[in-house]
Amino acid sequence: MNCSARIDSKLKRTAFPLFFLFSLLLLPNVASAETKPNIIVVYADDLGYGDLACFGHPTIKTPHLDQMAAEGMKFTQFYSAAPVCTPSRAALLTGRYPIRSGMCSDKRRVLFPNSGGGLPSSEITLAEALKETGYQTACVGKWHLGHLPEFLPTSHGFDSYYGIPYSNDMDRVAERKLGRKIFLDPKVKYWNVPLMRDTKVIERPADQTTITKRYTEAAVKFIQKNQKQPFYLYLAHSMPHVPLFRSKEFVDKSLRGLYGDVIEEIDWSVGQILQELKSLGLDQNTIVWFSSDNGPWLIFDQHGGSAGLLREGKGSTWEGGMREPTLAWWPGHIPSGSVSQELGSTMDIFTTSIKLAGGNVPADRVVDGVDLTSVLMDTGKGLRDEMVYYRGTKLMAFRKGPWKAHFITKPAYGKEPFQEHDPPVLYHLEHDPSEKHDVAKDHPEVIKELLAAAKKHQQTVKPVPSQLEIPLAK
Amino acid sequence: MNCSARIDSKLKRTAFPLFFLFSLLLLPNVASAETKPNIIVVYADDLGYGDLACFGHPTIKTPHLDQMAAEGMKFTQFYSAAPVCTPSRAALLTGRYPIRSGMCSDKRRVLFPNSGGGLPSSEITLAEALKETGYQTACVGKWHLGHLPEFLPTSHGFDSYYGIPYSNDMDRVAERKLGRKIFLDPKVKYWNVPLMRDTKVIERPADQTTITKRYTEAAVKFIQKNQKQPFYLYLAHSMPHVPLFRSKEFVDKSLRGLYGDVIEEIDWSVGQILQELKSLGLDQNTIVWFSSDNGPWLIFDQHGGSAGLLREGKGSTWEGGMREPTLAWWPGHIPSGSVSQELGSTMDIFTTSIKLAGGNVPADRVVDGVDLTSVLMDTGKGLRDEMVYYRGTKLMAFRKGPWKAHFITKPAYGKEPFQEHDPPVLYHLEHDPSEKHDVAKDHPEVIKELLAAAKKHQQTVKPVPSQLEIPLAK
Repeated sequence: MNCSARIDSKLKRTAFPLFFLFSLLLLPNVASAETKPNIIVVYADDLGYGDLACFGHPTIKTPHLDQMAAEGMKFTQFYSAAPVCTPSRAALLTGRYPIRSGMCSDKRRVLFPNSGGGLPSSEITLAEALKETGYQTACVGKWHLGHLPEFLPTSHGFDSYYGIPYSNDMDRVAERKLGRKIFLDPKVKYWNVPLMRDTKVIERPADQTTITKRYTEAAVKFIQKNQKQPFYLYLAHSMPHVPLFRSKEFVDKSLRGLYGDVIEEIDWSVGQILQELKSLGLDQNTIVWFSSDNGPWLIFDQHGGSAGLLREGKGSTWEGGMREPTLAWWPGHIPSGSVSQELGSTMDIFTTSIKLAGGNVPADRVVDGVDLTSVLMDTGKGLRDEMVYYRGTKLMAFRKGPWKAHFITKPAYGKEPFQEHDPPVLYHLEHDPSEKHDVAKDHPEVIKELLAAAKKHQQTVKPVPSQLEIPLAK
Repeated sequence: MNCSARIDSKLKRTAFPLFFLFSLLLLPNVASAETKPNIIVVYADDLGYGDLACFGHPTIKTPHLDQMAAEGMKFTQFYSAAPVCTPSRAALLTGRYPIRSGMCSDKRRVLFPNSGGGLPSSEITLAEALKETGYQTACVGKWHLGHLPEFLPTSHGFDSYYGIPYSNDMDRVAERKLGRKIFLDPKVKYWNVPLMRDTKVIERPADQTTITKRYTEAAVKFIQKNQKQPFYLYLAHSMPHVPLFRSKEFVDKSLRGLYGDVIEEIDWSVGQILQELKSLGLDQNTIVWFSSDNGPWLIFDQHGGSAGLLREGKGSTWEGGMREPTLAWWPGHIPSGSVSQELGSTMDIFTTSIKLAGGNVPADRVVDGVDLTSVLMDTGKGLRDEMVYYRGTKLMAFRKGPWKAHFITKPAYGKEPFQEHDPPVLYHLEHDPSEKHDVAKDHPEVIKELLAAAKKHQQTVKPVPSQLEIPLAK
């Protein structure tokens, strides 16, 4: 038998089984849905709703995130649970509004290097809940939920940690007189931010120029090491929080300038992870989320991002402060190229992940996250109908269905006082996502309903001490 | 030989040729590129840069336009040549700034039912240029380049016309006292807009509720009739210009409300056309453009669209007034899923189409359109480096590369006077697409360059009488 005849014969034998196999690939992979899926959460820092190409940015190229959207689901009404870093991350990891864990405050909006508090050990993180059902867990990137040993990732259910413990603009050592210049022309030496492995500082100051690349390498290594067991990877990029840094491969790569370079490196990072999952054949058994902690830091001009058509940004309870560009990817399970207009929150990643892993959502406390599985699989309506907007401990606004009532407003970072609205101002967010047209006077019945729903929510909130006001012991 | 054996044998014979054929399909279709491609231009009315899902709108669903983008090219820096209707359409059809044809004015910004002027017969439209090389041509939809017989589409190179001759809010017959209510709760009887076939009025008032559907049916019929010869179809939807109307199938379909319903019907319309091209096997030989005449009409609140992250809207020379959500689709030729950040203009559709058709770009006059073929095929840099922003006859702003200098600004529709800027205000549109950060003081050399380029452009402009100021003869 010559070679060509052998190939022909092989083709003859395999053609039909191949077609059959190909048809199966087009169906949801029911078998692997029954196994525990790996879970990856990629969390950006201060990324705006309008900063990805697939969310409408004209000059930032994000081909890998666009591809992730094309192969997965894009959420257009997905919220973090706070407009600033620390409380937003507490909510992501616990599935609870930060008011419940004490991870918010009206005096200090986030944790600082001189803070002595952190996420209480009584809180149950997603890492802890998943460990209980047999997951390997890793945290790579920015933590910002307490930098004392008892608060670090390794004390909260993560088998390992590699990253910086708080924001990359803290531990400032630059001369005061440089003012804002340190952000507009940033140099690594202006900050003394530590890079940690588990509980040890391994580099200080962290070389932020290669931080996105090194996080990515650590994430890929973790995936490679855990091919045979379910894993949970929390990859929290330090960028695009100011000061902005990127690897030399991304210098001047983006038309959008330095900020665009930084986003394009994060996009590359996501591409590396999805590619690794595909190469290892783990793609059909790994759900990957992409979101951000809060909106863009607008006061940093061109070094801050864009909330697109949404009003305001980081620090604010207008939509631009808390609605995030969110993607979910799980080939064979989540319909490719789908756009979900359902409400969702980063808190729902907690509940959904535990459900998918066959674990137990904590029953001894209020959990605010809902299970988004029906939305992801397109098998039914979403379970989230409400969103509460806190600034520190203040309940500023409340959304129910398409309606959002603001009870209190305040510009994100100005000196203007809090402005109370009685009656509240009201927006129909689906008709008017930019919150331009107050329609309160036409809908008194809606305001009544939202006030009642907000009151009901508040009745579930028990006072706890603020972790953000605890000073570091001398 | 039993049946299964026969299939096996057939497979054996065809497996390799099939693989070969499949590989060929992945390459650009060189053969059909040598034939004259059909050209379809779908033009929306007052659609905002941020109003499609693929350009970032959270609650308007545009699956067909998203699919068109996924199979084609999305342009993120594509401009109309005017921020209002009549001059924008004159530029689209002639490839020239409207200042050259007299299709602009400082007194009347567009043509009205009491106007006696229109696009001069001395202008060469794309329809005329394509007819010369053997194209069948049709105009379906809103015209707005003169409603007297000598100005209608059939006098400008189109074999047929079906549509309304000017804006759908003209010929108002509603009682004055109703005020803005006629827009916020529109009824067909409030306007006496004619629907025309060629030069005859066939319905008055036009039933605007079914206008998008009927335009689509007429467009599909034209395509079906012209399968054997090259054709040019200009489909100019009357929507989403206020008053907003949609067919009963789209009532309450969109989360975005009435405006969303209207966009979703236009999206359906595009889907019908692409589907028809695929069914007839014409997709590889038809280039389809989608764009809009100007930005969203913001003064109409929720009945107006959104410019996304861009500043201002219709009527304005800020980006929101003139940058359009633009797609180009030509399977087998334009790389699928591509995003072009190159500059483009609706005027370039004129030049590019003539080049692709093997016709002659008029040599006896200034043509402002450039050939975008290299951008579409991804074979080289774009040829457009400049964009001029006119309001009426006033040169308000000038873009060169990423830089835009505003010499004069004025809110779109307010009573504030024109504000002259000497020195101009300057924005880096690629770093700062929202035009928030005036960087004039840091770049005097750029301003000098832009002033020189604007002056050079102005030297090519010869005074012509305004067509928009000619009254209708009694």
